[in-house]
Amino acid sequence: MKFSIDRENFQYVIQNVQRAISPRSPLPVLTGILFQCGNGVLKLTATDMEMSVVCSVPVDVADPGDLVIPARYIAEFAKRLPDMPIEIETIGGSRLATIRYGQSEFNINGYSASDFPLLQVPEGEFSFTVSSEELRDIIRKVIYAVSNDDSRPIFTGVLMEIEGTGATLVATDTFRLAMKKFVLDAPAPGLINVVVPGKTLNEVVRVMGVSDGVRVTLSKNHIMFETEDTVITSRLIPGRFPSYRQVIPEDFECVIRVSVRNLLDSADRAALLAGERNSLILFQSAREGIVISVRSENGWIREDIEADVEGENFDILFNVRYLCDVLKSCEGEEILVKLTGTYTPALLTPHGDDSYLAVIVPARASKE
Amino acid sequence: MKFSIDRENFQYVIQNVQRAISPRSPLPVLTGILFQCGNGVLKLTATDMEMSVVCSVPVDVADPGDLVIPARYIAEFAKRLPDMPIEIETIGGSRLATIRYGQSEFNINGYSASDFPLLQVPEGEFSFTVSSEELRDIIRKVIYAVSNDDSRPIFTGVLMEIEGTGATLVATDTFRLAMKKFVLDAPAPGLINVVVPGKTLNEVVRVMGVSDGVRVTLSKNHIMFETEDTVITSRLIPGRFPSYRQVIPEDFECVIRVSVRNLLDSADRAALLAGERNSLILFQSAREGIVISVRSENGWIREDIEADVEGENFDILFNVRYLCDVLKSCEGEEILVKLTGTYTPALLTPHGDDSYLAVIVPARASKE
Repeated sequence: MKFSIDRENFQYVIQNVQRAISPRSPLPVLTGILFQCGNGVLKLTATDMEMSVVCSVPVDVADPGDLVIPARYIAEFAKRLPDMPIEIETIGGSRLATIRYGQSEFNINGYSASDFPLLQVPEGEFSFTVSSEELRDIIRKVIYAVSNDDSRPIFTGVLMEIEGTGATLVATDTFRLAMKKFVLDAPAPGLINVVVPGKTLNEVVRVMGVSDGVRVTLSKNHIMFETEDTVITSRLIPGRFPSYRQVIPEDFECVIRVSVRNLLDSADRAALLAGERNSLILFQSAREGIVISVRSENGWIREDIEADVEGENFDILFNVRYLCDVLKSCEGEEILVKLTGTYTPALLTPHGDDSYLAVIVPARASKE
Repeated sequence: MKFSIDRENFQYVIQNVQRAISPRSPLPVLTGILFQCGNGVLKLTATDMEMSVVCSVPVDVADPGDLVIPARYIAEFAKRLPDMPIEIETIGGSRLATIRYGQSEFNINGYSASDFPLLQVPEGEFSFTVSSEELRDIIRKVIYAVSNDDSRPIFTGVLMEIEGTGATLVATDTFRLAMKKFVLDAPAPGLINVVVPGKTLNEVVRVMGVSDGVRVTLSKNHIMFETEDTVITSRLIPGRFPSYRQVIPEDFECVIRVSVRNLLDSADRAALLAGERNSLILFQSAREGIVISVRSENGWIREDIEADVEGENFDILFNVRYLCDVLKSCEGEEILVKLTGTYTPALLTPHGDDSYLAVIVPARASKE
């Protein structure tokens, strides 16, 4: 393997694939990045066996070949490179990569490319294309509701339901739920119902930031996100996503229209006293608006927020983090908070946007 | 106590004193900030009993008074305040502070101001004034050589020696030493020789950033740094700073002139392979320049750096962190590295600046 590359491209490809690595993998080769060069292209691959990221850039190839280079060293080294052309070479079948820059050189022991596991992905069954900006927005609106609890893997993923050109993403950790609908550029051949790992979608948001369009391809057990130079492939989470429709309330006793900014700022201040464990705030609807309050041994806070309130008034205990997560994912100026009772789920929707909703299950008051 | 203040001033005073607090102090009152208002001024004080920071701003005082407010809550709360006038009040002799903003209020339990310990500082014996820019530069040039080892307190401080208008700061952790000379605007009445805690000087750099001039006052056991609105007072470290002059080599077998930037970049890359514990690099002077190299089980690096070398050539083992610390503190384009042998201290001075020097003691090679 021998090729030359400029610093900017070198840093770009490494940064794009780097996060897919499992730094503490028991398989040493997985702590590395697979370098493959040939036909004027350098292709880098990193994987944790669940997800892989592949990124390609044009380079001057003097000698095609491949090698796995430890990610930790090569990524830190790339950041520190001087701004000059870099030449990377492995001599014969050796596993030593030599990087030359000016009069200096860096030599790093790698692993054989033949030991690197590649995800085998079957033919895609259905593809659609979405702008990277829209995809980022869609993901951001549901990803916060994903569970971190690996003991119930299905909740660590996001349900993707497709029927015709209508697509829906749903995430829930059983305490709250977020749902976002969007329209595809091509109809699906049948009903599609898959669960995409939350980790994969986070990586998609990070890597796809600068590209124009993202092509999404679904196959039986995999999902693939492609831009011009980068491909993220991930296993889907097996199992059945729980039926979520009955969780979404439909009839309301109270509808509140309030500024997202004001409610978020108030909730943020109240969170200060809300404790670390369950972070509860008391949310009260009244004729003139909303009152948020918290009492703790250290003091108390009362936030009066102007709002349009229609219907019955309720006192509800919310986990303030859940409330803030929803508010942070809204771009609009106003949000509707729709209540059905003190202990029944609340529905939150941006005012004037039917494509997005969030459900928060209230907490039960502890006996004092 | 009752006063009103705008958000910007409120955030400014809190931020300025906040870091002097000892958050894990066994004395709860020390986890708070002392608020004192009267005569149109709000004065905040925080202390860890070694150092105190006092910051004052003009406010509208409706009722003079004082209270200690837990720093953790008030600092976080101040960051989240809306941009509107804020009113702070304690009713009668109560220890509850009520902060009103718009229709909302935050109430936080405090401590009695009479429980707050104030540093008693004797009359100053000598004062001088220095621009904040110069003070920051002087401190930055020596502070990195201070020891973090509390078992030998004298090395955690910076020696300040004054004779006439000549002042010298010296710091050493016994493995390296940094010395910076500067000229005072007024002569000292006699020889002054005090040791200022490194922590205090770090705080001075942080807080004094925006002021024009800093007045430094020395008394028997204390040092004080004053700007228009902020006063940092600190105990001096008792004991005798070790005699350092004989550590500074005077005759050299080899003098190297090299670009600070090039040497720093090369050392930075070499550090990647230099290991975490003692971080050794091999520094070799040769006719054409310097070669820095490291060999580890993961690979090896060789950096060729252009330099003017005069005299005998040596191979020296440096702790790469020590070398980088010196280089980062230099503004000039070139540095002189002066060697006396393989195992004897090296002297580093910016080319064309006699006011600053650093000494690094080489490591001994481990038997291989």
